[in-house]
Amino acid sequence: MAIGVGVIGAGTVGGGVIETLLGNRAVIGERLGADVSLVHVADMRPEAFEAFELGGVTVSEDARALIADPKVDVVCELIGGLEPARTFILEALGAGKSVVTANKMLLAHHAPELTEAAVANGVELRYEAAVAGGIPIIKSLREGLAANRFECVYGILNGTCNYILSRMTYEGLEFGEVLRQAMELGFAETPPDLDIEGHDTAHKCQIVASLCFSTEVALDEIHVEGVTKVTGADVAYAREMGYVIKLLAVVRDVNGDIEARVHPTLVPEAHLLASVRNEFNAVYVEGDVAGATLYYGRGAGRRPTASAVVSDIVDIARRDGAPPPRPFVYAEKRTVRNIGQHVGRYYLRLTTLDKPGVLGSVCTILGNHGVSIASCIQKEEHEERPVHVVLMTHETVEASLRAALAEIDRLEFIREDTHALRVIQE
Amino acid sequence: MAIGVGVIGAGTVGGGVIETLLGNRAVIGERLGADVSLVHVADMRPEAFEAFELGGVTVSEDARALIADPKVDVVCELIGGLEPARTFILEALGAGKSVVTANKMLLAHHAPELTEAAVANGVELRYEAAVAGGIPIIKSLREGLAANRFECVYGILNGTCNYILSRMTYEGLEFGEVLRQAMELGFAETPPDLDIEGHDTAHKCQIVASLCFSTEVALDEIHVEGVTKVTGADVAYAREMGYVIKLLAVVRDVNGDIEARVHPTLVPEAHLLASVRNEFNAVYVEGDVAGATLYYGRGAGRRPTASAVVSDIVDIARRDGAPPPRPFVYAEKRTVRNIGQHVGRYYLRLTTLDKPGVLGSVCTILGNHGVSIASCIQKEEHEERPVHVVLMTHETVEASLRAALAEIDRLEFIREDTHALRVIQE
Repeated sequence: MAIGVGVIGAGTVGGGVIETLLGNRAVIGERLGADVSLVHVADMRPEAFEAFELGGVTVSEDARALIADPKVDVVCELIGGLEPARTFILEALGAGKSVVTANKMLLAHHAPELTEAAVANGVELRYEAAVAGGIPIIKSLREGLAANRFECVYGILNGTCNYILSRMTYEGLEFGEVLRQAMELGFAETPPDLDIEGHDTAHKCQIVASLCFSTEVALDEIHVEGVTKVTGADVAYAREMGYVIKLLAVVRDVNGDIEARVHPTLVPEAHLLASVRNEFNAVYVEGDVAGATLYYGRGAGRRPTASAVVSDIVDIARRDGAPPPRPFVYAEKRTVRNIGQHVGRYYLRLTTLDKPGVLGSVCTILGNHGVSIASCIQKEEHEERPVHVVLMTHETVEASLRAALAEIDRLEFIREDTHALRVIQE
Repeated sequence: MAIGVGVIGAGTVGGGVIETLLGNRAVIGERLGADVSLVHVADMRPEAFEAFELGGVTVSEDARALIADPKVDVVCELIGGLEPARTFILEALGAGKSVVTANKMLLAHHAPELTEAAVANGVELRYEAAVAGGIPIIKSLREGLAANRFECVYGILNGTCNYILSRMTYEGLEFGEVLRQAMELGFAETPPDLDIEGHDTAHKCQIVASLCFSTEVALDEIHVEGVTKVTGADVAYAREMGYVIKLLAVVRDVNGDIEARVHPTLVPEAHLLASVRNEFNAVYVEGDVAGATLYYGRGAGRRPTASAVVSDIVDIARRDGAPPPRPFVYAEKRTVRNIGQHVGRYYLRLTTLDKPGVLGSVCTILGNHGVSIASCIQKEEHEERPVHVVLMTHETVEASLRAALAEIDRLEFIREDTHALRVIQE
């Protein structure tokens, strides 16, 4: 028995999938007792296939020829972006073919429409590669931890941001410098905004949040802050206090409501997430039955992403023609909390003229809003220039903190908007 | 549609499964769109059920009544040990019921017989809980990483050993002292031999090795060393050299042959496995497509193990009566390498009288066997008593090293058998 696979898009990920299907067909067959065979590839740029020995595989410039090919049982959409990816997927599902995609942006925008089309046609839509690349996190959340009520998920889900923050942390570099080098070396996309402004992480956060709670979390319900405002000074102060700064996707159940947010976060150095360096991704999950588990690996790149895509194909093949399992249903819509309701500790970096009474005034305003201080760093400075005052708060409600900061930033000796970062506890 | 679950054994794990099925039935139903319902429990000690509100669940003292119950679709074997567990599982499979077990010892001894019985009866045998408790590692290896040829797997798979080694490492305690405390606190089984002699880890190593290579690896082909010979001094010298000692299950593909071994191992401090402390488990996997991934969590205990058992039940329920997927076939038997063929670096602790020429004699013998030294620790000692000389070798073949050590340990100034530990590289 053979499963025929069609791959639309022969870019980085598509190329990796083609390579893996051709190169590991024997070992996959051994594990399956069946044959997962690449039968059709499509790309508008026929030269994209020059690197591969495709033998009897059909090559098309037109994705629709691939979708219509009766030899194709499973369609892999690996072109990315919203359109024409969405149309191709809907057409493939409509033609009764299961679809595997790595397209996090499309899922974050259109998962309900795509899921419904899969169910209506009795086929599957799978997307292991959409979150955390080579780490089987979708499978772990959906199946491996199926017994659990999820309490929280913290994810390092963007390799570019983690690479930049790691070099800032361990080499003392500034954000702009590392970004420029990363772009020159091809580690960062050009333009890099989708990564560094946190939107790519937000797409993955949306997928994880929807999955954890079997409900739809809309992309615009997710609070998103990127890493562009994190300075070398922030990284250094955080380390002095025993923390490492990471861009996290945070998904939490708070008494039945959902928190879903993306922002740079102070992570205690002893937390396993603090050890996740460079381009690596990791997902830390707390379930009420399994307790804490963590999943680590490469979140992007040709081969890690291909590993995830091919695992989805193998899962479809293993059904051997039996009807697809029930999809995970969308349960009732739940309230997604506003960021102002967030309760936690905060790191605050004030930039102020070094005058008597500064700390007193700041702490008075914070106190008036119910924000109390746990620790403080203020270095003695002998020159006439603005200095940093760094404060770590006790637990507080974000709305109160924001109200206090609005007042503080109007004080005449404050020279820049105060930089506030959230903190996770172990 | 409801799946009826029967649980044989209401001890620690069985109790956790009963608790989870009763407590999380709603959330599991929401995720499944179906009802996983506990219908029958069996334990020879009827008092074992006093703690649960079992409502309409049938309670038996006899496992056979549970297996024969037509309301039971899936049988969970949670009594452990070889018999009567093996007989109960074979009877359940024979009655056309899928079986979920946490019984690593039974699988390590009888997996082929049990797998064949499942296939012959068109049902499934699942065992996520048998390795690394709450971490979905079986699913990750079988399904999540299905595209990969496995290069190596390093597992910290016994919480008791990792707890003992962690306290030795971070509190400077001796093995016997920590073991005694652990037994008093109930963290270690009484007697503790299955854990501390490495046999429990070997059972899990056997399951992982068989799974990674789709072939049978016999338990007696696995080289096993426990942690009882690791001293506080070893732990301290290792740290001085930048390593942490962990009991690892190692599974590797060496040019098509298999290595499967369990032994205390020096792990570089920067390796993620070195950060896995106390009773936690972790599995580090290198695949040719995904690269390195790591899975971390609680490897034992009532609820983490229950999480794994229930995930298997959910997977069976999700098929919704469709035939089970193809089992992973046993491919051709492969050669399992003898430990003498192992190539790697070694930590050596010699106990010797402090006389001139000792290091020279030792290094000459090592050199004669082709073993060269990368680094050395010898502390000056002003008392008349045996001292330690610690050597780190370059890569060498174990058989050569063993031949050299046999000669060295016959030297008159050597006062104890030299302690040799293997080292993994990052």
